[in-house]
Amino acid sequence: MAKEKLVKEITSMEEDFAKWYTDVCIKAELIDYASVKGCMIIRPYGYAIWENIQSEMDSRFKATGHENVYMPLFIPESLLQKEKDHVEGFAPEVAWVTHGGEEKLEERMCVRPTSETLFCDHFKNIVHSYRDLPKLYNQWCNVVRWEKTTRPFLRSREFLWQEGHTLHSTAEEAKAETIQMLNVYAEFAENVLAIPVVKGIKTEKERFAGAEATYTIEALMHDGKALQSGTSHYFGDGFAKAFDIQFTDKNNQMVNPFQTSWGTTTRLIGAVIMTHGDDNGLVLPPAVAPIQAVIVPIASHKEGVLEKSREVCEQLKKVCRVKLDESEQSPGWKFAEYEMKGVPLRVEIGPRDIENNVCVVVRRDNGEKTVVSLDELETKIPELLKAVHDGLYNKALERRNVMTYDAHSLDEMKEIADNKPGFIRAMWCGDRECEDKLKEITGVTSRCIPFEQEEIEATCVCCGKKAKHMLYWGKAY
Amino acid sequence: MAKEKLVKEITSMEEDFAKWYTDVCIKAELIDYASVKGCMIIRPYGYAIWENIQSEMDSRFKATGHENVYMPLFIPESLLQKEKDHVEGFAPEVAWVTHGGEEKLEERMCVRPTSETLFCDHFKNIVHSYRDLPKLYNQWCNVVRWEKTTRPFLRSREFLWQEGHTLHSTAEEAKAETIQMLNVYAEFAENVLAIPVVKGIKTEKERFAGAEATYTIEALMHDGKALQSGTSHYFGDGFAKAFDIQFTDKNNQMVNPFQTSWGTTTRLIGAVIMTHGDDNGLVLPPAVAPIQAVIVPIASHKEGVLEKSREVCEQLKKVCRVKLDESEQSPGWKFAEYEMKGVPLRVEIGPRDIENNVCVVVRRDNGEKTVVSLDELETKIPELLKAVHDGLYNKALERRNVMTYDAHSLDEMKEIADNKPGFIRAMWCGDRECEDKLKEITGVTSRCIPFEQEEIEATCVCCGKKAKHMLYWGKAY
Repeated sequence: MAKEKLVKEITSMEEDFAKWYTDVCIKAELIDYASVKGCMIIRPYGYAIWENIQSEMDSRFKATGHENVYMPLFIPESLLQKEKDHVEGFAPEVAWVTHGGEEKLEERMCVRPTSETLFCDHFKNIVHSYRDLPKLYNQWCNVVRWEKTTRPFLRSREFLWQEGHTLHSTAEEAKAETIQMLNVYAEFAENVLAIPVVKGIKTEKERFAGAEATYTIEALMHDGKALQSGTSHYFGDGFAKAFDIQFTDKNNQMVNPFQTSWGTTTRLIGAVIMTHGDDNGLVLPPAVAPIQAVIVPIASHKEGVLEKSREVCEQLKKVCRVKLDESEQSPGWKFAEYEMKGVPLRVEIGPRDIENNVCVVVRRDNGEKTVVSLDELETKIPELLKAVHDGLYNKALERRNVMTYDAHSLDEMKEIADNKPGFIRAMWCGDRECEDKLKEITGVTSRCIPFEQEEIEATCVCCGKKAKHMLYWGKAY
Repeated sequence: MAKEKLVKEITSMEEDFAKWYTDVCIKAELIDYASVKGCMIIRPYGYAIWENIQSEMDSRFKATGHENVYMPLFIPESLLQKEKDHVEGFAPEVAWVTHGGEEKLEERMCVRPTSETLFCDHFKNIVHSYRDLPKLYNQWCNVVRWEKTTRPFLRSREFLWQEGHTLHSTAEEAKAETIQMLNVYAEFAENVLAIPVVKGIKTEKERFAGAEATYTIEALMHDGKALQSGTSHYFGDGFAKAFDIQFTDKNNQMVNPFQTSWGTTTRLIGAVIMTHGDDNGLVLPPAVAPIQAVIVPIASHKEGVLEKSREVCEQLKKVCRVKLDESEQSPGWKFAEYEMKGVPLRVEIGPRDIENNVCVVVRRDNGEKTVVSLDELETKIPELLKAVHDGLYNKALERRNVMTYDAHSLDEMKEIADNKPGFIRAMWCGDRECEDKLKEITGVTSRCIPFEQEEIEATCVCCGKKAKHMLYWGKAY
């Protein structure tokens, strides 16, 4: 049956990637725009993806000993100001509450842009002895950053996220936690979202406000732009000192504990869209797809077709998230609809299939069709879902490899930045001056110093001095 | 072994119920006070109870066809003002955001106190035809109401809740939804929280701002005060008209749809504390207890005790949420600690128990001890958890029955209100004037017109005219 594009046409990626992206967000019914500019409504299909992300991630946090808590939405101005670098980083972009009911507040409060200050204030109350440590906390909540330019999922004034906050008696333990959670994020990105990521540390210039070290996972989108997809921060004892958090150690000395925080956001949905999507719409990795397989009956008015489809649906409920579409729309309309929504597998069942005791399973990621015996469906569908995941991951990895370029000189770096979207790898002396200059000349920003180093050259592409690190660069969302 | 009260003493209920309540909140580590007055920090143990409530409730919502969405945190002032009664009800107690970053906003926004206006604004965009209906949505989020007096869980300026919002093509369908969700709440209260509730409809005076009908479940706390524990509202087409939501019906006419909303909050945790708690602390119904059984090794330095305890712990993981406390604290300290935290079952394992291949299981609700063979533990523990649930429910029901009084006259009603904490049942003519007068004279407020009616007298206790309804009255949180 010819695929009918009856309803939803979207701009092609080639024509206008940004327009393609928002078209997918709207037409796959992930979001709607809200009456407050820069905020978004996450619709049921979009929210179901977030619920799957939450559930997969939350179980990883709990498996590593973390507990969920809930801190207040508001931060009094005086509390936000306690850590100098932190307030400088966030104050320009917070929303301020000045009135409660009819009354003007004595002290204005901001809507949390992140909750380090609130956690510190609480830690000060509850941590007294080394026996109280570590505190391994996480929070699922909404945060607000009053951004000037916004895009659904990628940068919105309110977004949903998780923020981990931990407190440790030693610097070593806190550092190990920071790395552990980065690894959790990377494993999650690859095994759940099918997105390959580069793990590394941010340069000092790109660090989180108040952190001693910021680690990141960086993914490459379809258009060659980088997306920072999760960060993990080591704070040393800076916040603890600013907030006067102390505990009695084993030697009965009063000392400051060491701290971390780490976060991922609804931006991950943007990463999924821009890594796997195509000109027919969304393509979802099976682990987070609200519907993993959709059953489309063919010639459903013919005797036995609906009955058999329902039977297959009941059977498949045991092994995946399945939906049977019994609506009156044509099969062609349904094909287009579920392609738009990125459902990993389509199961077609028609009169002739039933005669032969088979159905046709079509993969969303590559269009591959498999005729499957109805007796083998319960084992075949999970296998095919696994194949879709692997297919998506490998395709994304291959694209990233093709779109990653080594620059051996400043000229070459500029030439790549101007003409080839993607990651640029280049050697760097470690000086802020060269980082600034490279950004100015090439228009790309430093993404991270990857854990996996490689010596492309012996010297910095910018100043020619001895190189300290290989650095990833790119245009970023 | 004698129970040692080594650490945490709390005020007794008898002495000061309000102080007992906050003592339990703090000492069972459910909350901490926050730097913003009237807001609270929900600590891991408290939040884990909320997670269990969420999970139990969310599965009921999904089973009845509802989908989760996420609406923005902010409501522009002009949007809040679209429905007259609604804005009058909420405007006096909202928090206002006036600045984004350094800039003053063109229009101030409130932090959502409830999201009817946001849902309406969205429904207007997405509903066009009868085919788009019903919309059965729910949202888990935080809301803010700038209350003057606050108490943990019961009334705080920010709280967590779920709010259902549904849109239907007919009034009948919307009314049925309103009742269905009230029944879901009542079933949840009884089967999950072990709290008996009275189901009924609020008088016009006590209705939600903008609703045509408000249904409620009312529970009776230990001190005889009522707690409104969940509400379900029928809006007719009032909001739809105010927000200009229209759809084409089957006859190709443009008409307004009919709407409902329904909500429950973290207040349910307050209901659990004040229904089941005692002078030793919290008592948790098994279905929401973060730890359902705690294993306390006795004489744990003796050979084999810790090993056997760990073995039992692994075994019990299959059937319940279990924790083994291997810490160096004394058994007596642990007994008191887990009583304070309301853990439904304590499993004691000592050297002599091991010799006899048994352990001692102690119920938190009534102190009953059972010697259980280690071979039968996997069947006995779920049975005992069920027994704790039933025990809690029956005790609460019995107390409510004892504390429910019928008033046959105004004098009697005043006498009961002055001297006997609890519910008062009295006949009412249905006039607002009598309701106001009864409140003024007796100091109690109308809770609801219960679905289960009984004719106590033929006439209104206040005016002596023919009675229309039997009404529940009480002092309320």
